[in-house]
Amino acid sequence: MSAYDPDNIFAKILRGEIPANRVYEDDDTLAFMDIMPRTDGHLLVIPKTPCRNVLDASPEQLASVISTVQKMAQAVKAAFDADGVTIQQFNEAAGGQEVFHLHFHVLPRHEGVSMRPPGNMGDFDLIAKNAGKIKDALA
Amino acid sequence: MSAYDPDNIFAKILRGEIPANRVYEDDDTLAFMDIMPRTDGHLLVIPKTPCRNVLDASPEQLASVISTVQKMAQAVKAAFDADGVTIQQFNEAAGGQEVFHLHFHVLPRHEGVSMRPPGNMGDFDLIAKNAGKIKDALA
Repeated sequence: MSAYDPDNIFAKILRGEIPANRVYEDDDTLAFMDIMPRTDGHLLVIPKTPCRNVLDASPEQLASVISTVQKMAQAVKAAFDADGVTIQQFNEAAGGQEVFHLHFHVLPRHEGVSMRPPGNMGDFDLIAKNAGKIKDALA
Repeated sequence: MSAYDPDNIFAKILRGEIPANRVYEDDDTLAFMDIMPRTDGHLLVIPKTPCRNVLDASPEQLASVISTVQKMAQAVKAAFDADGVTIQQFNEAAGGQEVFHLHFHVLPRHEGVSMRPPGNMGDFDLIAKNAGKIKDALA
């Protein structure tokens, strides 16, 4: 497995070098909107400290991230009146990973509505509006 | 969200009422082979205590399960000389859940090899052989 690259885009988001629609943070984790949402409300949860993925994460990183994943799953279910939630987590390129800082995908789901294909940039106004709904649900 | 059904098939596996290819267990969690493997080595990690999914899990259930998920991700990567690992976790039917006892899917992945479609029963001899490889990697 390659070493952690401190210039990956999530590291840049953590350092505030590039913008993101942040919806939640605590001492150890950050949640922000995916810019290629496969469902409305699709967000990502990451640790604030560096690790590449689940394969090299510390127990502390995993525990704090999964706790925030749960909080976000409950929040998106409420924010979008969702019928379910899909969680995905990819490790290394062959596993589906594109940004090499540990992240969990959290996607609100509705009955009969498929996920959109990956890799399509979302509408930034809609993403911002959906971020607002999640923040309201958390408030 | 519906109540936990103590007669779901994973509860029956935990009680030993139906068989499973178990590869790992500790005080709090169990890992066993998926009988509809989407990649060779596809396994599931569950808590030994009842909860429906991430939406109603306790902090202790989540922490123990994610720790075993990590251990299994590392094990399947070694057992199958995998290039990556995909982790999926489904909540409620709309989120992709079919058995309503919390479970994480752990799938070893290889470059250029897609996951098979869901819902197809695997070859039981091959599943048993793959379980053996994972147990060897853990030993």
